Amino acid sequence: AQSSVTLFGVVDAAVSGYSNKSENVAFPTLANPFYVDSIKASRTALSNSGYNSSRLGFRGTEDLGGGLAASFWLEAPITNDDGQTGISTFARRSTVSLSGAFGEVRLGRDYAPLYWNDTVFDPFGANGVGASVVFTANGAFNTFNGPASPAVAGVPSVSGNSYARASNSIGYFLPPNLGGFYGQVMYAFHEKDKFDSGTVTPTALNNSRSGRYVGGRFGYANGPLDVALAYGNSTIGDGFYAGTTTSVKTINLGGSYDFGVVKLFGEYSTAGKEVDYEVTPLVPAADIDLKGYVVGATVPVGPGLIRVAYSQAKYDFNLPFSLVGDPKADKVAIGYVHNLSKRTALYATVARVKNKNGAALTVGGPSFVATSTLVPGQAFQPKTSTGYDVGLRHAF
Amino acid sequence: AQSSVTLFGVVDAAVSGYSNKSENVAFPTLANPFYVDSIKASRTALSNSGYNSSRLGFRGTEDLGGGLAASFWLEAPITNDDGQTGISTFARRSTVSLSGAFGEVRLGRDYAPLYWNDTVFDPFGANGVGASVVFTANGAFNTFNGPASPAVAGVPSVSGNSYARASNSIGYFLPPNLGGFYGQVMYAFHEKDKFDSGTVTPTALNNSRSGRYVGGRFGYANGPLDVALAYGNSTIGDGFYAGTTTSVKTINLGGSYDFGVVKLFGEYSTAGKEVDYEVTPLVPAADIDLKGYVVGATVPVGPGLIRVAYSQAKYDFNLPFSLVGDPKADKVAIGYVHNLSKRTALYATVARVKNKNGAALTVGGPSFVATSTLVPGQAFQPKTSTGYDVGLRHAF
Amino acid sequence: AQSSVTLFGVVDAAVSGYSNKSENVAFPTLANPFYVDSIKASRTALSNSGYNSSRLGFRGTEDLGGGLAASFWLEAPITNDDGQTGISTFARRSTVSLSGAFGEVRLGRDYAPLYWNDTVFDPFGANGVGASVVFTANGAFNTFNGPASPAVAGVPSVSGNSYARASNSIGYFLPPNLGGFYGQVMYAFHEKDKFDSGTVTPTALNNSRSGRYVGGRFGYANGPLDVALAYGNSTIGDGFYAGTTTSVKTINLGGSYDFGVVKLFGEYSTAGKEVDYEVTPLVPAADIDLKGYVVGATVPVGPGLIRVAYSQAKYDFNLPFSLVGDPKADKVAIGYVHNLSKRTALYATVARVKNKNGAALTVGGPSFVATSTLVPGQAFQPKTSTGYDVGLRHAF
Repeated sequence: AQSSVTLFGVVDAAVSGYSNKSENVAFPTLANPFYVDSIKASRTALSNSGYNSSRLGFRGTEDLGGGLAASFWLEAPITNDDGQTGISTFARRSTVSLSGAFGEVRLGRDYAPLYWNDTVFDPFGANGVGASVVFTANGAFNTFNGPASPAVAGVPSVSGNSYARASNSIGYFLPPNLGGFYGQVMYAFHEKDKFDSGTVTPTALNNSRSGRYVGGRFGYANGPLDVALAYGNSTIGDGFYAGTTTSVKTINLGGSYDFGVVKLFGEYSTAGKEVDYEVTPLVPAADIDLKGYVVGATVPVGPGLIRVAYSQAKYDFNLPFSLVGDPKADKVAIGYVHNLSKRTALYATVARVKNKNGAALTVGGPSFVATSTLVPGQAFQPKTSTGYDVGLRHAF
Repeated sequence: AQSSVTLFGVVDAAVSGYSNKSENVAFPTLANPFYVDSIKASRTALSNSGYNSSRLGFRGTEDLGGGLAASFWLEAPITNDDGQTGISTFARRSTVSLSGAFGEVRLGRDYAPLYWNDTVFDPFGANGVGASVVFTANGAFNTFNGPASPAVAGVPSVSGNSYARASNSIGYFLPPNLGGFYGQVMYAFHEKDKFDSGTVTPTALNNSRSGRYVGGRFGYANGPLDVALAYGNSTIGDGFYAGTTTSVKTINLGGSYDFGVVKLFGEYSTAGKEVDYEVTPLVPAADIDLKGYVVGATVPVGPGLIRVAYSQAKYDFNLPFSLVGDPKADKVAIGYVHNLSKRTALYATVARVKNKNGAALTVGGPSFVATSTLVPGQAFQPKTSTGYDVGLRHAF
Repeated sequence: AQSSVTLFGVVDAAVSGYSNKSENVAFPTLANPFYVDSIKASRTALSNSGYNSSRLGFRGTEDLGGGLAASFWLEAPITNDDGQTGISTFARRSTVSLSGAFGEVRLGRDYAPLYWNDTVFDPFGANGVGASVVFTANGAFNTFNGPASPAVAGVPSVSGNSYARASNSIGYFLPPNLGGFYGQVMYAFHEKDKFDSGTVTPTALNNSRSGRYVGGRFGYANGPLDVALAYGNSTIGDGFYAGTTTSVKTINLGGSYDFGVVKLFGEYSTAGKEVDYEVTPLVPAADIDLKGYVVGATVPVGPGLIRVAYSQAKYDFNLPFSLVGDPKADKVAIGYVHNLSKRTALYATVARVKNKNGAALTVGGPSFVATSTLVPGQAFQPKTSTGYDVGLRHAF
């Protein structure tokens, strides 16, 4: 068979502005004459991936006969605004597959099933300042507790989180000819050492099985309708001697319906971070829940597309008593994409997040200021985050 | 429109030798019996980029109709002598553009305007042991004072200097049909956080606005003549609390004239490193100036090209009194390129730098020895640097 | 001449299991009630390169006329199982060449001559759990003593060992038309600074000339027969003030004969690690020898290939008296490759290493447990290492 490598990519750059305001929740007193109402951290930048994620990839398929095919897909994230990240990783996707009438078996680093609902059923595709808070909150929620691979400043690391993608995975995909039904399951190895006899040698790090991922997604797409349900269980911490395993279990359900003049989108997501104990203590750690939803729409206007979305993320600490309400963030985003061709588009997006009770989600840019170096004793809490992208997306 | 990615590159390797001599400016005494006249640090190496910079890149253009076009350019520096640097960054160029009758708007990391005069009007193109001291001195002169991105040993970093290239930039280029006139302007974002109220939160690092770059270049090319003037202003340090901003402002003017049997080159460059104060102190820091020039020629000889150049760089510390003269370096370089085809050439270059009064410019290789570990009390000062490249350049 | 870049690669992924057992060589006593016979460290992983090394490369040749040609070869190792390593280095090969009737001159980073016998005459090609202990033991044996380039956790480094490949090298290859005879020689620069006067400035690091490599390989291939002899001398440490130079000198001889129904393989390797002294001390360090051999066979079965190999590595510390025998490892490997096409294959390999007297060679996976954190006073010594790969190799 003839070799056929396809080189593909996206180069997306935008001028972006971010302004993230923290509010002083303390009160002005006589002893505190330098009372400051709020602190705003802002930044203007040339950013990448405001509409579609910048990338460079290599892929190919070989027909093996008898309906069988082998294929590979190596896709690198790139930071084209500053040139700092070349093809230093294939963190976006790095797989080899065997497919046939039975479906497809895929080995390597791949998108985790949950991610697809977050991106397909968000009018902003989980990119840029408009990305839903369901996506941004869940991403942070799945960060590994125990030490992952050593993180080196300046060196891209692909590990530490299996929410959007998982390394060392085996995936299975249903074949495409099932009358609109589609589906996939995924298992990712933790690749941690196991010792026998078990009590003798593990180190004390909280990572004995962290990195393991199990998930799946099933959906139905027919004409204007597309709905899908996904589940994922990510082991984010595992203390061998403590006898604890921390995992995040997430379910999301999304759908879209294209009426032609308008396409509607919706997603609901619920996640729980739980600690399993080998020996349950008197007062076990409370689970933390994260629930969220997205509703949105796109409206085609000639060669353009108007996009709007509203999303919410709500944490529940499951505490018996609490003086403060549970953290919550609401986000609204609106944008316009002007297609110059199928491959090239100009776009503009504005978005605003409103945080309550300590939630600290941003549209991007600087972190919220939480403490003040010059005026101690004040209590700043994240409040609003506003931002925009005005950019150019070119695909090849 | 059809996708069309062009893969291109240069693989240039040479055997290179460097010998950098420091002179003892102390005097032999009875108490110092181990007097050493001079110390030579030398190295023989397989080097890259002796004639043209080694690189690997991807680029493409899409015709959008109506004279409009979108294009991208991703170009990585590579170290083909040791294989250590793959496509780990797109530090050479990483841009996406929209062009038309109005000219071209370019976003990303790109060459800074000043760089073009240094390379186009130097017979050695600012590469290898023959590169002019105007280029090597100005590169070092523009190094950021304040901490740039965290530098990790072994990890290529694209920041720290905007003399030759700038990240996070917006560029505009005149269209090509202006009767020989050409031009470009460039602005690069510093991407640092700004705080409001301003006095509360910046860190003490000297980098509040460092990284900002403004520059432009305008020229005229017609037949045998090419002349261009360029300007650049690079913010290399910015202390928020100190109220100081350090910037390097550079102007260079270059030209070439091709008589057929010989092509002549010349460039003049003048740069000033200034500290601007919010509140001017009694004794402000003196500006440092760096002036330099290149004169050179190339002579075609059958399939070959003889190259010669003389360049000078001179620092001025603007001190009211000084016992020592200002540092100065002179360089002479001569070389021959033998073209085996348009893409493949053999080349040889020899060059020598002579430093005075503490200037420490080399043709490459080891640093000058400034102190001696075995003979304390002696004072070594950089003197001459001599080197050669004998190599093979292959482009694709 | 027309540019013609070929993009090529291998994506090879397998499910692999490793189980490495250490034996307690102490005795149970009354004072030691927690006696543990053995400790097993095991891991299951998605691995890469179990059959062929995963890679992505760019290469091309330009016909210069008159029998001359220029060519380049840039080949990156990739870790497709986790996507962590993209084209971050061209550590596998990074060369530019000029070739003609005289043979080929090659500059850059390339395979060292010794490596070819280890891979060509091993039925498992020095890849996966089946790789011969001759290859794995010699690789570790050639590790630099003195500090190499600064190693950064998480950043691939190409230096530290010149057994399989050498950076900064000049290679010469005989032309291909010599009646079956083939050959190559290689010299790699150490690229360390030299100082004159010599006693004044070198640092105390043990690396004044480390990195230098000299080697060659000569063989004869005709019909079913292929034999080759290779030699390499790698400077792995050099203390300027101590006046010591540590080098590893290796000779290997390999051959294969293809009877059609079965192809037989054999290799013998002998290496010595020696310290050369400027002033020989009373009791110089004893040389360490490493001898090994491989015998193996492949049997084609329809579209498949059965592979078997037995290999041994034996260290000799050359000590006058020793209570313990010299370390020794024996390995047996068996596998099957099922070709779905020329480019795509399924494969399975199982292998087992048996270590004696402190040898610690594995088939891969976790290190042997040498001490126990909970039961001090026990003495664990590496014993057996067992593993398997079941995978898919796709080349393009």
